[in-house]
This record gives sequence, structure tokens and C-alpha cells, in this order.
Amino acid sequence: MTNMETRMAALEQRLQQLEDQNAIYQLLTSYGPSVDSCSAAKTGALWTEDGVYDSSLAATPFVGRDGVADLVNQESHQGYVKQGCAHVISLPHIVISGDSAVATCYSRVYLREGDHYRVERVSANRWELERTGQGWRVKLRTNRLVMPADEHRALLGRGVPEPHAN
Amino acid sequence: MTNMETRMAALEQRLQQLEDQNAIYQLLTSYGPSVDSCSAAKTGALWTEDGVYDSSLAATPFVGRDGVADLVNQESHQGYVKQGCAHVISLPHIVISGDSAVATCYSRVYLREGDHYRVERVSANRWELERTGQGWRVKLRTNRLVMPADEHRALLGRGVPEPHAN
Amino acid sequence: MTNMETRMAALEQRLQQLEDQNAIYQLLTSYGPSVDSCSAAKTGALWTEDGVYDSSLAATPFVGRDGVADLVNQESHQGYVKQGCAHVISLPHIVISGDSAVATCYSRVYLREGDHYRVERVSANRWELERTGQGWRVKLRTNRLVMPADEHRALLGRGVPEPHAN
Repeated sequence: MTNMETRMAALEQRLQQLEDQNAIYQLLTSYGPSVDSCSAAKTGALWTEDGVYDSSLAATPFVGRDGVADLVNQESHQGYVKQGCAHVISLPHIVISGDSAVATCYSRVYLREGDHYRVERVSANRWELERTGQGWRVKLRTNRLVMPADEHRALLGRGVPEPHAN
Repeated sequence: MTNMETRMAALEQRLQQLEDQNAIYQLLTSYGPSVDSCSAAKTGALWTEDGVYDSSLAATPFVGRDGVADLVNQESHQGYVKQGCAHVISLPHIVISGDSAVATCYSRVYLREGDHYRVERVSANRWELERTGQGWRVKLRTNRLVMPADEHRALLGRGVPEPHAN
Repeated sequence: MTNMETRMAALEQRLQQLEDQNAIYQLLTSYGPSVDSCSAAKTGALWTEDGVYDSSLAATPFVGRDGVADLVNQESHQGYVKQGCAHVISLPHIVISGDSAVATCYSRVYLREGDHYRVERVSANRWELERTGQGWRVKLRTNRLVMPADEHRALLGRGVPEPHAN
């Protein structure tokens, strides 16, 4: 019985790891549809109550769930929406440590232009996440435009460790 | 023993959820390589027998597995292929309810132009899926070009609920 | 007890499948951040000791972990980095057979141009992977630019089988 008990506990732990990763995928893939459909409440709900979105496009960070939610009402965002825009993230690389996690990925904003699309922005993204009573939420999202300068490169470099045994 | 039985059943159910999500990832990532390699049979096989593809690019929906398969033979698709094209979807957000599921994501068509690429199309996508005896298949794919009009925004908004506990 | 033993063994095997797929996602999503942050060691470490990267952009394949690592020092890569670049892969389709796997996906290189971005390259990718004592590693990555010619189409076609029961 002890042997079965041990195997069961190991399975439960391994499954939890995959469920955590999956829940983070689900959280991050909610972002684009939420902002592109101008759903302020859904956008804010992806963050923790005191979560922060530090974007290289905004003069100051968006602070708190309401602050983040409000980004969909900003003039610049509304301008994008009226033109036709899509906020798309890439498959993230995720490092989970207990109740915290870091997801590193790229984001792009595509804008309608004439009869096709322009790649308006490409950014490196670091999402610092926290397991809350309501599931995984964003504590701090930092994004940096991909530029000749190296700020976005530092962000990418620290998000992805050398691959280890798995 | 009852306790072990209960834990085992819970594990089996949780694992099934992840396997379903994963099977849908595998199904959707088959679409691009199938149409870009002009594999009509593989493309059709992703849909249910009576599945539908309602695209904002086509005057009428593609109906049935054979109807969907035939899209790779359309003049517009063949024109793209001759120019060099890539149909790429983003990581989808997936909501599973028993034997049905909805996947919401973005798709892009990149076209070779001169010595680089043009973003020819960006669309919001809703894939309504069904678990069949042969695995998950597409019952209805709806895609809408990202435009100033708001049809694609409604599609995005209804695909992604507010995040819940997980 | 036998029944529980059988169910446990089945669960362990199913979980292993998902963990393998997940480990491959993690490996492939390490590539972009590694090359875009010019981390030669991290880039090389994604490959097996004798792994190969056969790129349609390079006159000869990059051979061995050190050879692959060195690609971040190439003049062409350094030029991209100085301009501001992002190497982004799409969600891969993965076929696992024991200790080998094939992942098929698209990759794009976005380059900063003026105040927005150009899609510099779009390629079809085939990653042949191997389970090593240190986890999954790349044995052979083949990428082919999406072109009017059909080389990339053959690569895409052979990577994705018709969907099967799951």
C-alpha cells in the first residue's frame, strides 16, 4: 500500500505542474481577446488586485486591477481598435516555483492598413505570476519594445534559463 | 481502499482535461501545414463529416469534409501558394464542456513579397469542436478579418470568459 | 489491487506523454529568447552534442553544440540584433515516438524598421528531437523559407499526419 500511496502522490504532484502551466497558458491567451474586444473588466481580472502592467508604451505603469482595466479606454488603444487591431502573444516559456511563476514570450500588435496589415509593435514580455485563491493571476507584466537598444534583450535573457534535465 | 479509488478517479478526470486540451492544440496546429502543403485530404479530415468553415474571405461557407478539403484547390488559395504563403494560428484559449469545446485564437496569413513578407490577413477565430469516435474534430470554424468594423471583436469577446478559479 | 496497479501504470504513461510534449514546448520557446539576447551557451545547449541546424539562410549547416551556439556571433545575426529583432515560433505540432519526436511549426523574424516592424523572414520548421539523459534536445532542425518553390511545403506536409483517434 505504501508503494501505491507514493506513486499516487508523485502523480498528483506531476499533474499539478502541468495544470499550472496550462492555467497560465489560458490566462495569457485571454489577454488579446479581452483588450481587442475592449472588455475592461475581463482585462483587469487577469491581474491581481494590486497587479502592475509596466509597458514601454505608457509614460507610467498601469497600477491595480482598475488601472490595468482602464487601458482599453485609453485614446491610443481606442485609436488602434477603430483602425482594426490584434494583440497576439507567442507560446510562452514558463518557469514555475511553487506559487510564483515567470512567463517569457513575445507580443505583437497588428494594425489594419489599406487592404492588409502592418506589424505596429513587437515586444519582449515578462509576466510575473502568482497563484491566488482564484487561480493564477498577473502580478507584474513588463514589456519592452524590440529595439536597437538592449533593454528587451536583458528581459529575454533572464526569463529563459539553460535547459535542464526533465 | 476507497480513498485510493477516489484519488485515482480524480486523477483520471484531471488528466483527461489536459489530454483534451492537448488534442485540440494538435488538431489546430495541423491546419496550417495541411493547407500550406496543399493536402486536401488532411485539411478535410480535421473537420467532422458535416463540419463547416465560415470564413469572411469566402462568399459562402465551406460545408462538409469534402467542401472544406476543396478550399486548397480554390484559385485564391493556389495564388497564395504560388507566391509563398504561411497560415499561422496563435496559441488558442480553450473552453471545454464535456464533449464540446470552443477554441478562440488569431490567425495570420503571411505572403512572400519581394525579398521579405507581407501580413496579408489577420483574423479572429472561433473553433467549435466536438469529441468524436476518432478524436476531437472541428464542427464550425468561424473567422472574421480584423477590421474597423466590430464583427471580429464580438467573436473575441464571447470566446474568453473572465478567468475563474483553477 | 491488480486493477489499481493497472490504472496507476496507465496514468503514469499518459502523464509522461503530456510531460514530454510540454518539455518540448519549453525547449522550443527557449530558442527565440536565447538568440535574441545573444546567449550563445543557452542556444547551443538546446541541441544534442552532435546536433545540427540546417537553415536555408546559411550556406552550410551549423554542426555540433558549439557550431550552433556560434550562430549568434554571425555577422548577419549581429546585424539583426543591432536593428532590433525577434525570432518567434508558432505553437508546434508534435509527434512523439518513444525517445524521438518531430515538431513542425512556423518561425518568423521581425525586424525594427522606422517606427514599426518588417516581417523579414517566414520559415517552415522541422525539429527532430531526442530524449537524452538531460531531457529533450534538438538533434536536427531544418528550416526552409516560405517561397514560391515547394521545398517548405514538402517539409510541412511530412510533419503532420492525418489526425487520428485520441
